[in-house]
Amino acid sequence: MIETKTLSFRTRSGTDIIDITKEVSEAIGKSKIKSGIVSVFVTGSTASISTVEYEPNLINDIKRALEKIAPERGDYEHHKTWGDDNGSAHVRATLMKPGISVPFENRKLLLGTWQNIIILDFDTKPREREIILTIIGE
Amino acid sequence: MIETKTLSFRTRSGTDIIDITKEVSEAIGKSKIKSGIVSVFVTGSTASISTVEYEPNLINDIKRALEKIAPERGDYEHHKTWGDDNGSAHVRATLMKPGISVPFENRKLLLGTWQNIIILDFDTKPREREIILTIIGE
Amino acid sequence: MIETKTLSFRTRSGTDIIDITKEVSEAIGKSKIKSGIVSVFVTGSTASISTVEYEPNLINDIKRALEKIAPERGDYEHHKTWGDDNGSAHVRATLMKPGISVPFENRKLLLGTWQNIIILDFDTKPREREIILTIIGE
Repeated sequence: MIETKTLSFRTRSGTDIIDITKEVSEAIGKSKIKSGIVSVFVTGSTASISTVEYEPNLINDIKRALEKIAPERGDYEHHKTWGDDNGSAHVRATLMKPGISVPFENRKLLLGTWQNIIILDFDTKPREREIILTIIGE
Repeated sequence: MIETKTLSFRTRSGTDIIDITKEVSEAIGKSKIKSGIVSVFVTGSTASISTVEYEPNLINDIKRALEKIAPERGDYEHHKTWGDDNGSAHVRATLMKPGISVPFENRKLLLGTWQNIIILDFDTKPREREIILTIIGE
Repeated sequence: MIETKTLSFRTRSGTDIIDITKEVSEAIGKSKIKSGIVSVFVTGSTASISTVEYEPNLINDIKRALEKIAPERGDYEHHKTWGDDNGSAHVRATLMKPGISVPFENRKLLLGTWQNIIILDFDTKPREREIILTIIGE
């Protein structure tokens, strides 16, 4: 059995990291599927999905690590292609990839106590982000 | 329902990044399964799968970021094990991981407009790469 | 069809990288499901799952690359939140993400010859780690 649902989130510019655990949990709670996995996938090429202990200090640490890997104000050849300024966002998104799969049983996500599901939106403009949930199981 | 298909691609040495969206889309288009996810997995320990806006300048930016994380001409203890020269390829592949899952509906991949599926082959020799597609849905 | 199994592993402090291919293969070998994918997911926010050619020199190279991205003895704002010392572990886990999916056919994992499945436990204390296997197929 398969169910597909779409969630929408408004994000701010810069690396905006949003906790979406509640929304994913609610979708699983209302599903006809009792056990399986949910694929959480962000459409677009400047955002990723991961998990984290969601607290503001750690969110800053993660932004700092990403800034080292692909600095927001660095030089990117991509900027020459479209006159864009979001080369860092593209590089970060490709390295961190667009989705994860999370297991669930009895309509509850099998996450660790401090493990939350997040969107990381790396884009330099505010965006309306679409997340595709595909619930697979029985 | 499940379908397994294998795709093959020839890659060049160095970090060769190939757009495989067309081949994955065609496999989904011909499938008996209408909606679900496709797992895209590369066998081997020196390549990864991700998504990107596929344009040559951005591809260069991604190669540059990977070169910072694990330089191709760096010192790797792995080189002592087999006399190999592809330590950077192994490190990059482990950090970026071997696969992704992409949702689809009505036999169409649910990707963003500029979001393409890519193989990143980090190896220092040309390779014949096998990609396993597992199509899951109904 | 879906089957969920839990595996447990004891890990040491620091970045402990453990080969779990044998345990995952055995679970697939005993499953009622013949072909499909297995989702390998680690609960908790300081560990990841990936694949690697499992040999000690390369394991050292990977630890060295992670040390560059998020040094174990670096300054992390997260340390102020709980008086913890594992900021590096959280950052590494979010960047590397909690799981992967691996295809299988005829109850055999479709891995490359040198491709092993690993837990990377980044935490600064020994842990008892739970891995959730979700086997999906027919």
